Amino acid sequence: MAALTDPLSALQELNRKAGFNVWAGIEVLHAESGAVVIGMPWRIEAGQYTGFLHAGVIAALIDTACGYAAATQAGLSLLAVHFSVNCLRSASGERFEAHASVVKAGRNQFFTRCELYAFAGQGRSLVATGETLLNVVATS
Amino acid sequence: MAALTDPLSALQELNRKAGFNVWAGIEVLHAESGAVVIGMPWRIEAGQYTGFLHAGVIAALIDTACGYAAATQAGLSLLAVHFSVNCLRSASGERFEAHASVVKAGRNQFFTRCELYAFAGQGRSLVATGETLLNVVATS
Amino acid sequence: MAALTDPLSALQELNRKAGFNVWAGIEVLHAESGAVVIGMPWRIEAGQYTGFLHAGVIAALIDTACGYAAATQAGLSLLAVHFSVNCLRSASGERFEAHASVVKAGRNQFFTRCELYAFAGQGRSLVATGETLLNVVATS
Amino acid sequence: MAALTDPLSALQELNRKAGFNVWAGIEVLHAESGAVVIGMPWRIEAGQYTGFLHAGVIAALIDTACGYAAATQAGLSLLAVHFSVNCLRSASGERFEAHASVVKAGRNQFFTRCELYAFAGQGRSLVATGETLLNVVATS
Repeated sequence: MAALTDPLSALQELNRKAGFNVWAGIEVLHAESGAVVIGMPWRIEAGQYTGFLHAGVIAALIDTACGYAAATQAGLSLLAVHFSVNCLRSASGERFEAHASVVKAGRNQFFTRCELYAFAGQGRSLVATGETLLNVVATS
Repeated sequence: MAALTDPLSALQELNRKAGFNVWAGIEVLHAESGAVVIGMPWRIEAGQYTGFLHAGVIAALIDTACGYAAATQAGLSLLAVHFSVNCLRSASGERFEAHASVVKAGRNQFFTRCELYAFAGQGRSLVATGETLLNVVATS
Repeated sequence: MAALTDPLSALQELNRKAGFNVWAGIEVLHAESGAVVIGMPWRIEAGQYTGFLHAGVIAALIDTACGYAAATQAGLSLLAVHFSVNCLRSASGERFEAHASVVKAGRNQFFTRCELYAFAGQGRSLVATGETLLNVVATS
Repeated sequence: MAALTDPLSALQELNRKAGFNVWAGIEVLHAESGAVVIGMPWRIEAGQYTGFLHAGVIAALIDTACGYAAATQAGLSLLAVHFSVNCLRSASGERFEAHASVVKAGRNQFFTRCELYAFAGQGRSLVATGETLLNVVATS
């Protein structure tokens, strides 16, 4: 387990290797020890049938941001074991941001949490919250 | 709240209207009152950086299957309010299936659960479990 | 749905009617619109076999505090439908406090979250976090 | 990590050392590899203010049963890290039973699930479901 020395660059590079994140247009906007912000523009293929952001994409944003927040402190050898999402409001907007932070950094396990915001016009609203539990994986 | 009279056809039609599901290649394979099976082939854009199925796509499959299972009994006016996912094993395979069922059908709320299987060669393995709580939305 | 006019008194009175809360020595320490603090002293009957606070008592504190936080805004007609708990550290101490707040107040549903602290000597540590989803129950 | 050779006796002995379980009258009724049933009679001190079983006691039953189910395969060195509960119906009855089983037994982690039943007169109803994620703790 080793913290990332330049977390923003390291996560941006990692992010370019994740097929789903590239497809969805997910970008790493901010990273410091224990906290990360990622963003994504709206696109029709990210929607469910009523035109709101698909719960799977909501989960992808939350899970990705949580994993990146943990990675700033634990390095890249992490596996999500459990995550949950609260859908507070229908998620519609031109752009979305997930703000994640580390709640507890253990030797073997990281507890993280995240808020997902939708941006429409000048406004921002909290559309979902979530949390992810990650295991630190032993590397040889 | 009205059960779907021909759940398989109704859900397949609904599924074709969800941008994300069309993009991901999600198909409705089976539907009866209270139980649904959906499937999806592997594709590189559904992966995270190590080549396993992205947690967001896992969540999308589980959440979609759970919503469809509830819809067979409640109709289409449903909103997911909370869902959670357990990642039991790294999700890799040529194809994935999510098997969802209704645990409790309330007047205003449905509790559902789901198992996600990966198929590789001749074998099938349980890679994730999850559950979704849905609200029945009043329609005029 | 009606907010409590004097939330601290109303919740203290309600708390005295809950058999479990009286037995456990749970007290309402602070209440304002959307936020509540409850406390409880350690006792051997609240422990599991290694002498730490029992997960059930951790859940009771989190669920009670969350319900009370929602009640300050929604009144007493509330039902918990889902709750979850993260056990960050072994919960030992002389006294425990649960700090809960409302994340989203809907017409029919409240999303709440809670931090559980253990007090030992002069120190305080965060031992668990949790969240509760509550339905507002129609009253005649 | 070592499976219990006589799981029923070992868990009954362990159960007698947990202050909360003794107070609540929780008993281990059945235990085999990967599956456990525990029971508890109703008592007024286990109730919340409307006379239903307190969410904390619901959580205690689910978490205890899940932990015991994992212990049949992993031995007693286990720590719950996350658990969640779905409250399907108001929990009232003369007696309660929690039926837990192992979903996935890993080297370091156990995923478990549980159903909670209430018994009233001749009838039995499913009042809650839940799941617990447990870490296997290294012992020297």
